[in-house]
Amino acid sequence: MIRVAILGATGSIGTSALAVAEAQPGRVRVVALAAATNADVMAAAMARHPVVAVSMATEPALQRLRDVAGSLPRVAGIGDEGLVAVATHPDVDLVLCASSGTAALEAVLAAIDAGKTIALANKEVLVMAGGLVMDRARAKGVAILPVDSEHNAIHQCLHGHRGADVRRLILTASGGPFRGRTRASLAGVTPAEALRHPTWQMGPKITIDSATLMNKGLEVIEAHWLFGVAAGQIEVVVHPQSIVHSLVEFSDGSMLAQLGMTDMRMPIQYAFSYPERWSASVPFLDLARAGTLEFLTPAWDEFPCLGLAFRALEADRSLPIVLNASNEVAVASFLEGQLAFTAIPDVIAATMDAHTASPVDTLAAVRAVDAWACAHARELVREVESTER
Amino acid sequence: MIRVAILGATGSIGTSALAVAEAQPGRVRVVALAAATNADVMAAAMARHPVVAVSMATEPALQRLRDVAGSLPRVAGIGDEGLVAVATHPDVDLVLCASSGTAALEAVLAAIDAGKTIALANKEVLVMAGGLVMDRARAKGVAILPVDSEHNAIHQCLHGHRGADVRRLILTASGGPFRGRTRASLAGVTPAEALRHPTWQMGPKITIDSATLMNKGLEVIEAHWLFGVAAGQIEVVVHPQSIVHSLVEFSDGSMLAQLGMTDMRMPIQYAFSYPERWSASVPFLDLARAGTLEFLTPAWDEFPCLGLAFRALEADRSLPIVLNASNEVAVASFLEGQLAFTAIPDVIAATMDAHTASPVDTLAAVRAVDAWACAHARELVREVESTER
Repeated sequence: MIRVAILGATGSIGTSALAVAEAQPGRVRVVALAAATNADVMAAAMARHPVVAVSMATEPALQRLRDVAGSLPRVAGIGDEGLVAVATHPDVDLVLCASSGTAALEAVLAAIDAGKTIALANKEVLVMAGGLVMDRARAKGVAILPVDSEHNAIHQCLHGHRGADVRRLILTASGGPFRGRTRASLAGVTPAEALRHPTWQMGPKITIDSATLMNKGLEVIEAHWLFGVAAGQIEVVVHPQSIVHSLVEFSDGSMLAQLGMTDMRMPIQYAFSYPERWSASVPFLDLARAGTLEFLTPAWDEFPCLGLAFRALEADRSLPIVLNASNEVAVASFLEGQLAFTAIPDVIAATMDAHTASPVDTLAAVRAVDAWACAHARELVREVESTER
Repeated sequence: MIRVAILGATGSIGTSALAVAEAQPGRVRVVALAAATNADVMAAAMARHPVVAVSMATEPALQRLRDVAGSLPRVAGIGDEGLVAVATHPDVDLVLCASSGTAALEAVLAAIDAGKTIALANKEVLVMAGGLVMDRARAKGVAILPVDSEHNAIHQCLHGHRGADVRRLILTASGGPFRGRTRASLAGVTPAEALRHPTWQMGPKITIDSATLMNKGLEVIEAHWLFGVAAGQIEVVVHPQSIVHSLVEFSDGSMLAQLGMTDMRMPIQYAFSYPERWSASVPFLDLARAGTLEFLTPAWDEFPCLGLAFRALEADRSLPIVLNASNEVAVASFLEGQLAFTAIPDVIAATMDAHTASPVDTLAAVRAVDAWACAHARELVREVESTER
C-alpha cells in the first residue's frame, strides 16, 4: 500500500490520479491533497478519500473548502507553507507533483529532504531548478519518477538497461493542432483554435505550449535533467497519432519505444506501482486498429519555440528559467487576447536576448531570475499592445 | 573477449556473424566453425579467423575444405559428431546455432551440458524440442539468447522487467511477398516469386516460410518456449515495414517495442555483447525517414499455416514436430516444383490429422516423430504428384 499526497489535486493530472487510486483501492491510499482554489472539486475528492492534510492557495479558498466539506483535517494550510506541510506529512510515501507553475518548487525540495518519492508531472520544477532538484534527490537517494507521458516512456525504455549504452533519447510530439501550417498562416489564430488539441485532453497552458511546440522544448530540458543526457543527445520527432510516447536509441543501433493509449492514468499508475506494474486502469492498445503510425521531422522554422528551448539548454542553467518565465507570460497574454499566437516566440526570444547569464545555485537565485524574466516579458507584451493600438 | 563457435558459418546468419566479429575485433573471437558443404566460403572464413575446430556435413566436404584451406585445425570432424565437437570445444564460450534443420539439435544439447551460452538462430531446435532444450538450459543455468529478430526484440523489451507483469507478446510479421493476395490467386505462384521477400534477405527455406506465414507460426512456438507464455498470450500483427521487430504488452496497458533497421547483424551482436551493448555494426534508424509504420490483422484464411502452428502449440509437445517436419517436406517439394504453393498447408494439415499424440521426452522420441511425419508428408506429396499427372 503506497500512501500518496497529490499537489494539484483538482487539475487534469490530479483528477486522473484520484481515478487511479479509486481503481486500485488495495494498493494506493490518498492521504493528503493540495489545490489552488477549486474548493468544490477538492471537497468531492475529500469525501471519497479521507485525508490527513490539505492545503489551498489562499485563506478564502481554504475557508470555502471548510464550508463545502463541512470540516477540515488537523493539518490544513495555505500557500507555500501549506504545500510543504502536505508534501512532507509523515504519513506520505510519495508526492505526486501535478500543480502547474513554480509554486510547487519549494514543496518538492522539502519532500525530497523528507525522503519522499517524487512523481513529477510539473514541468517548471525541472526546467527552472533541474540542477538543484536532481542534486538534492541524488544526495538523499530519492527517486524522481516522471509522469509526463514522454519521460515516463523513456523511463520504461531505460529500466534495466545501462545508461552508458544510451546514444539518444527521442521525444515524440503530436505536432499540436497547427501541424503542417506555415508561421504566416498562424498570425491570426484565436485561443479557442489553439486550445483544440488533436490527441491529448490537458489544461489550457500546456495545450497552448503543445500548439507552439514549447511543450516539447520544455520536455527536452526536463529529459536532460531526468536522464543526464546532453542537449545533442535529445531528438524530437513529430508523431501525430501520439501512440508511441517516446523512444531510446542505444549505441548498438537498437531502439526501444513505449506505446499505449493517450490516457494519463497509465503513467500515473506506473509511478505509483513502480518497480511493479498493476492491472490496467486504462484500455489496452490494439495496434492493428491504430493502423498507421507516422513520424516526421519537426518544422523548426514554423515553430521557433522548440529551437529556443534547445538554445536555452545549451547556454547555462539560468537561460531555461528565462525561457520558461517569458513563455508563461506570453501564453497568458495570448489567452487573454493581448498577444498574437506568432508573437509568443518573439517575446521569449527578446527576453532571452536581454538576459545576462548568472549562477542559480539557490532557490532564491532561481526565483530572482524568474521574477526578472516575468517582468521583462510583461514589459514587452505591453509594448506590443501599445504599438498595436 | 567472448569466444564464439558458429554452427552454419556459411549461411546468411553465419556470414553476418562473421561480419560482426570482424567489426568488433577486440570483443569477439571466432574460435570454431561448422558448415554443411560450402568449403570455399568456409575456407575464406578460416583465413580471416584462425579457428581451433571445424566440422563439415560429410567426409568429401571436409576433404575439399582441407584442399581449399591448405590445412585443417587439430579438431576437424564431420556429421553430428563433428558438430558436437565444435559446439563443446573447451575454448568456446558461446555457440551461435545458425545451421538450419534438425542437425544442430544434438550439438545444442551437448553445448548446454558443457555450460556454453547458446545464441539461437535455428527455429527447429525449439519447435521440435523446446521442452527438452529449455529444461536442460534451466538445470544447467545456461542462457538461451534468441537471434531471430522478433525474439531478440522481445528479449530486449523484457530485459529488466518482471515476467509476472507480461500480458501478451506481439510478434510482427512483414506479411511476406503475397500480403493482400487471396488464397485462390496464389495457386499458381512460382518458387522465384515466393523467394522475393520485401524486407529481409534470407535463405530459401525461411523465405518460403515467410511467404506462407509458417515462419511466424514457428516463431509463435519458439516464443512459447523462450519466454514461458501460453499460446493465448501470443499475438501476431502484420507490419509490412519490418521496423518494429516485436512488442511486449504489460498488464498495466503499457507496451514496449524494439525497433531497428532490417539487418541481422544487430540481433547477432546483441547476443554476443549481452548484457552489455557495443557500438553499432549497422546503420542507425531514422524514424522520420522511415515515415510510416503500418499494422494490420493477419489474413488467417488466406495463409492457413499460421493457424496450423497455433493448433499444434495448443495440442501437445509432439504435434509441433509434425508441423515442422511436414512443412520442411512441403516447402522442399514446392521449391523443386513438385507441389503448388497453396498445397503446402494442405500437406501439413493432412499430416497433422494423421498423427497420434505421443510423449517426446527424449531426443530419440523427437526424431521418431520427425521421421514419421517426414515420411507421411513425402507420401502425400507423391500422391498429389501422381494425381496431377
